[in-house]
Amino acid sequence: MTTRFLAICDGKFGPISSKTANGAIRFTPERVAAVLDTQCQAKTVQDVLGYGGDIPVVHSFGDGVAAGANALLVGIAPSGGQLPKAWRGWIREAIQSGMEIWSGLHFFIGDDPEFAELAARHGVTIRDLRRPPADLMVSTGRVRELASTVILTVGSDCNMGKMTSQLELRAILKRRGRKVAFAGTGQTGILIEGWGIAVDAVIADFIGGAAERLTMDAAQGGDIVLVEGQGSIIHPGYSGVTFGLIHGSLPHAFVLCHQPSRKTIDGNPWVPLPPLKDLVQMHEAVARPLRPAPVLAICLNTFDLPESAARDAIKAAEDETGLPAADPVRFGAENVADAIERFHATRPR
Amino acid sequence: MTTRFLAICDGKFGPISSKTANGAIRFTPERVAAVLDTQCQAKTVQDVLGYGGDIPVVHSFGDGVAAGANALLVGIAPSGGQLPKAWRGWIREAIQSGMEIWSGLHFFIGDDPEFAELAARHGVTIRDLRRPPADLMVSTGRVRELASTVILTVGSDCNMGKMTSQLELRAILKRRGRKVAFAGTGQTGILIEGWGIAVDAVIADFIGGAAERLTMDAAQGGDIVLVEGQGSIIHPGYSGVTFGLIHGSLPHAFVLCHQPSRKTIDGNPWVPLPPLKDLVQMHEAVARPLRPAPVLAICLNTFDLPESAARDAIKAAEDETGLPAADPVRFGAENVADAIERFHATRPR
Repeated sequence: MTTRFLAICDGKFGPISSKTANGAIRFTPERVAAVLDTQCQAKTVQDVLGYGGDIPVVHSFGDGVAAGANALLVGIAPSGGQLPKAWRGWIREAIQSGMEIWSGLHFFIGDDPEFAELAARHGVTIRDLRRPPADLMVSTGRVRELASTVILTVGSDCNMGKMTSQLELRAILKRRGRKVAFAGTGQTGILIEGWGIAVDAVIADFIGGAAERLTMDAAQGGDIVLVEGQGSIIHPGYSGVTFGLIHGSLPHAFVLCHQPSRKTIDGNPWVPLPPLKDLVQMHEAVARPLRPAPVLAICLNTFDLPESAARDAIKAAEDETGLPAADPVRFGAENVADAIERFHATRPR
Repeated sequence: MTTRFLAICDGKFGPISSKTANGAIRFTPERVAAVLDTQCQAKTVQDVLGYGGDIPVVHSFGDGVAAGANALLVGIAPSGGQLPKAWRGWIREAIQSGMEIWSGLHFFIGDDPEFAELAARHGVTIRDLRRPPADLMVSTGRVRELASTVILTVGSDCNMGKMTSQLELRAILKRRGRKVAFAGTGQTGILIEGWGIAVDAVIADFIGGAAERLTMDAAQGGDIVLVEGQGSIIHPGYSGVTFGLIHGSLPHAFVLCHQPSRKTIDGNPWVPLPPLKDLVQMHEAVARPLRPAPVLAICLNTFDLPESAARDAIKAAEDETGLPAADPVRFGAENVADAIERFHATRPR
């Protein structure tokens, strides 16, 4: 039976705030039966996100089931990763209806005594996408033995397209006949791909080790490995995860992601985002002591700009950095894929 | 009843490899009854470490108890933090003898079914020093509200004196009448101080939050807060922890620790240690986007150098960086304390 989600996003369904649901809607729309948001006046997800077609937005659990849902997806990934208390009723109702529960929260639904007991009683599987493997190690630089070219997305902040850019780039490189693999490092990437490790949910000493293992595993399936980035090297909350990922996956090169309309770190207005040119230099500097890695290109998320302003922002990013720039979702990213292919063909080995 | 440890270090007792035991011996020798290492030929810890006096090295559990031990301390903190299988017998024996168990491993002894059951039966407390609090948050820059001056030790690698330097500096500043606090961020610091959070053992998203909370708590007790550093910004396994600590505690200034005889990252000979001058610049660069922080001084660990070479290394570090340098353990660190006091008095507020 195909999994068809009712994605719970109550009061949060929007282009930024319902990250997990949005990833599922963009990359696996056939698995999303409906979005539940009692506050949302829109009829379809297309009206809210600008993609997703006629997947309905519903106002009750029953309407979601009527729309064909046979599983519940927690559609948000809030800072701290806790389950909103008001949502417990829907989780309970889903388990009692025999629906699988999928969640990318730090709070593990399967470890909650009430839900665990209920799920056991109803024979329901709870998939906590962020639950780490039990046998992680400290990273040791093993990825240096790989023949594959490793590309990591990095960003000026969270939630501006590090996963989406890699998935769009994978699609382009696949169309071109490249053997390319994607390593999902967050709950949404894992949801879409069916495998991966949420590196932000592992014990801190093992961030690098998790990134190393993911990169090694992904390289089995690709001459080019696209690793999903996390956080930002200047994020006050998440920089540790970002650095563990950089020094564990040891990319040969970076793609830098940015949202031109964002001027400070989301939720931390005291941290201004440096100019792109500085961000390029900063990433190259922190990689250098372990394995030098250039920034190859810039991927912008211009969803909140008018088209002409978006095209101007791309041009400005190219002028500022001397690198190819694109909005992969809005205008495609053939030029970024070109840069990756060129680098893959010519990098020192 | 005073806790008196039998520190288990079997096959590992030495200046570098028995980090947890060594911290206890250096800073709380009155709590260490004996060290157990069946491979060690020395009679006293002084013979092995150059400090610790006549605390005996014993070859059996019984000899440790005879020396006055009433608690067992796991004396090592190996990479990955697992319990050597061969040591399980000693843990079992200790619990059966009613001895408390203290451990700083990632492996939680209290979560092991056999040990948990045995401890419950014998009414024995198991203290897993690395077990994180359950209610950690993502960091948000709250430490910027503190009036205290925050100083973080950083290092070119692990295990070269980041905790020891802070504890020596605290002693000097206390003698000078300063209100100074220490924030322990690792198992040994927590063992010595009786409080703290092992930031390398928390969920990756909460490293910064743990550092923030520790710094806030320590500031209750000090105008100057000395935060114990962890890892290194160029460590392939641990850089994530280091960055989380930097961006969560947001120090006003750094003290950079280094071991002159070490040329590459321990266990990772493919990562050369950059010159001190570059390390100074790199730390200042990664702090700058959140809160600018200068490196104030260099603390060297010269334990493995002859005295004249040690003094030359200190002089060379000063010449290279233009900063005061010291080996706090071997020759004292009044000049480093001077630099901290000067900075505390004059930093922009």
